[in-house]
Amino acid sequence: MSGRIAVVGLGPGDPRYLTPEAAEALSAADTLYGYGPYLDRVPLRNGQSRHPSDNREEGARAAAALRHAAQGANVVVVSGGDPGVFAMAAAICERIESGPEAWRALEVVFVPGITAMLAVAAKIGAPLGHDFCVLSLSDNLKPWELIERRLDAAAGAGFAIALYNPISRARPWQLGQALERLRRHLPGATPVVFGRAVGRPDESISITTLAEADAARADMATLIIVGTRETRVVARPGRSPLVYTPRAAAEVSA
Amino acid sequence: MSGRIAVVGLGPGDPRYLTPEAAEALSAADTLYGYGPYLDRVPLRNGQSRHPSDNREEGARAAAALRHAAQGANVVVVSGGDPGVFAMAAAICERIESGPEAWRALEVVFVPGITAMLAVAAKIGAPLGHDFCVLSLSDNLKPWELIERRLDAAAGAGFAIALYNPISRARPWQLGQALERLRRHLPGATPVVFGRAVGRPDESISITTLAEADAARADMATLIIVGTRETRVVARPGRSPLVYTPRAAAEVSA
Repeated sequence: MSGRIAVVGLGPGDPRYLTPEAAEALSAADTLYGYGPYLDRVPLRNGQSRHPSDNREEGARAAAALRHAAQGANVVVVSGGDPGVFAMAAAICERIESGPEAWRALEVVFVPGITAMLAVAAKIGAPLGHDFCVLSLSDNLKPWELIERRLDAAAGAGFAIALYNPISRARPWQLGQALERLRRHLPGATPVVFGRAVGRPDESISITTLAEADAARADMATLIIVGTRETRVVARPGRSPLVYTPRAAAEVSA
Repeated sequence: MSGRIAVVGLGPGDPRYLTPEAAEALSAADTLYGYGPYLDRVPLRNGQSRHPSDNREEGARAAAALRHAAQGANVVVVSGGDPGVFAMAAAICERIESGPEAWRALEVVFVPGITAMLAVAAKIGAPLGHDFCVLSLSDNLKPWELIERRLDAAAGAGFAIALYNPISRARPWQLGQALERLRRHLPGATPVVFGRAVGRPDESISITTLAEADAARADMATLIIVGTRETRVVARPGRSPLVYTPRAAAEVSA
């Protein structure tokens, strides 16, 4: 059994975020699996086969890739951002655990990438400069009540918050409700950042406040960062403002 | 005023983690500031000056770098990992806000990098495959009571937890006390990962449980990931186990 599977993070769209380790894994692959738009970012190489699939078919994609690797191929599964953050790495692990024993004998490698929250944060300063929480707002795989409980815990304890998967056609109301929930804990003036398609030609970043944050401004390609009571917005003459969360924190009142 | 300052994430030690964007920024710099061991990772280029400083001098380093940029230089400040995660980006923003107005007119760029938790997670599977929190255990800049409150909130709400700055000569007891605190909320069998110096020649990764986790095994170069009640360890014949947190979560009991 010489099969190998690498789960590779492409980072956000711009190839300047792609690490040398990821580039090497991509060019060594016999065959590539992934969500179609992510595969489209990988330069074509002669002799490589490609298997695009829909972004809601992660489990089936993982199984197909593992089956292919078990036949002896050098398989790459691509993820946008980092494969370990709401992406393909957990889906591959799940299938390895529940699949045939031969899959547990495969060589498996995970190649990290720049995940969306790091790219969005870097575009505007350091909003995640202190303790923070990272949540997916998708309730496909967990109950909405649990998401609300986690929002309460995160905001109540003074963490900054990065929200992945804020909204989709099938989940139109979740982000609005999450923002409403956060308003129970945090002042209206708390800075909020919407980062869309960072590193791609249609990139946009906007800074607003929790009071004014409008869920309708987000789509599937948006990553949202909600600051803390201490997060600062620094105006700059002729330049876009910086948003950062100071390294020092005072005691949060209970 | 043509000065420019770029705050650049080197990723973990291995140059295969360094993004093309970061490599470009490093080679374009007139002068480099940073913690000595991080600067040592950057290949020397003729004509570049270097200003190493101690890792507890972040504020002074930020001010020196900004002063230099305000004189018209192209200055790079290096961070290990990602500059926005417990590193130099927030320190630079703080100094820009409190410093002379000329500093707010400077061009400032933040270049993201692979932060330690992503590298450690990738080495063993997908322990951050679901919602997670990221905390620094350093109580230099926040009261210990706040750290405990955040540990309670994170573990109580079912987040996986990545712990940065777990221990140092000046802070010998914090990690032990944090693990003790987490034992109030999580079963002894909860998987815990110690990742040390990932991407460097002396890299080591070990998997243990919350009951057995021994703070004495960590040092300044260690990143710790504490799983959730749902985190799995998958044994593999002839290979190291995979650790992952499933994408699906059940309701957490209150």
